[in-house]
Amino acid sequence: MISKAEIKRIAALRAKKQRSGSGLFVVEGEKMVAEALQSGFEVENVYRVEDIGEEAMSRITMLSTPSPALALVRIPQAPSDADIDALIARRPLCLALDAVRDPGNLGTIVRIADWFGIDAIFASSDTVELYNPKTVQATMGAIFRRKVIYCYLPDVARKFAAAGMPVFGTFLDGNDIYSETLGTEGLIVMGSESNGIGDAVAPLVTRRLYIPPYPRGAAGSESLNVAIATAITCALFRK
Amino acid sequence: MISKAEIKRIAALRAKKQRSGSGLFVVEGEKMVAEALQSGFEVENVYRVEDIGEEAMSRITMLSTPSPALALVRIPQAPSDADIDALIARRPLCLALDAVRDPGNLGTIVRIADWFGIDAIFASSDTVELYNPKTVQATMGAIFRRKVIYCYLPDVARKFAAAGMPVFGTFLDGNDIYSETLGTEGLIVMGSESNGIGDAVAPLVTRRLYIPPYPRGAAGSESLNVAIATAITCALFRK
Repeated sequence: MISKAEIKRIAALRAKKQRSGSGLFVVEGEKMVAEALQSGFEVENVYRVEDIGEEAMSRITMLSTPSPALALVRIPQAPSDADIDALIARRPLCLALDAVRDPGNLGTIVRIADWFGIDAIFASSDTVELYNPKTVQATMGAIFRRKVIYCYLPDVARKFAAAGMPVFGTFLDGNDIYSETLGTEGLIVMGSESNGIGDAVAPLVTRRLYIPPYPRGAAGSESLNVAIATAITCALFRK
Repeated sequence: MISKAEIKRIAALRAKKQRSGSGLFVVEGEKMVAEALQSGFEVENVYRVEDIGEEAMSRITMLSTPSPALALVRIPQAPSDADIDALIARRPLCLALDAVRDPGNLGTIVRIADWFGIDAIFASSDTVELYNPKTVQATMGAIFRRKVIYCYLPDVARKFAAAGMPVFGTFLDGNDIYSETLGTEGLIVMGSESNGIGDAVAPLVTRRLYIPPYPRGAAGSESLNVAIATAITCALFRK
């Protein structure tokens, strides 16, 4: 059973304001719910269609087709400055997302980061919120394994540089990524879908890269989707 | 101005049945409409918000936020068997999509194919329809430059093999794609989001590939999204 008030409270988590206020986000699908329960995340409650009925499930779901299970999961605490410094001291390979606005793209990027062992994802404050239901679902569970850290990207880029690590970024006038030695540490900045890497971060990029079309210099598509460009870049770093 | 009957006719193109019946599909956005007009495609009509008004545009749009321009474009004729034979005789590099169901994934794959100079995309008949509005928009105009050919994939795979070209496919027990010599011709089969490459095509794959996670053999994500896997595969073929 589920009360009317509870239905209302869960449905309200569609709004970012309610997620921040309550510190909760919604996870749907048998597999995602199972992963939430096995993760270190705090699961507040699990609702199953066999317990609450299809009518109630259809009112709390964020999906167009409701799944049999929905969990309320607590948003973990953001890492402290000391945590971030400790992460950087381990000489990691990290992503930095500059104003990525599409929820599906962010979720897909978290999944890619998980596949390619990217240590953490930094995101500018104008990147879409991680706990948006579309983002959560697009991670396919990777949200429980990879950290997304919202911050002021120029500060993070400066920290990588101060530690003697490269700051990579893709630009139309960058070097052919296939010919570059990429290494295993540093920060890879990915620009937004529409505007690329912003002016605040661009001057801090020390290694300008470019994913060339085929044949080289071909006309046609002007750009790749940011999740696609991230996937190709990560695959080439981890080859 | 736009009549009520015309609004009804355009709005009906949301349904696949109406698209096949009328032979028309909808393109939205200033940039996409401009590309349609410059392409070899036959544009039946263009509707602009300054001519028809916001109210009418909001009724004919397939987008959640209407764009200033919408075009009705004629679906081109499917290539004949002779066209396909001529294509294969040119020893191309092509994609084959086996039961790709998500409209956004198909559109993104067309855009990737355009970037990486993939000559054509073959698609199983249970792959989502190319002229679905979500697919059209996700191509970002690449739909006007790359052919998607619906067919029985085993027949196509046999044709590539008969011409002495490899048939590639990704499998969990495939060879590490980074270590393989991939070449510039052949058919690259990509499986569906949920089931991978189906039983009808799998035995025809002559070169089994695998995109390994990092570190190699890492647990975590079980798979990559089909558009992401396609992007990485194409990038490695074209490096």
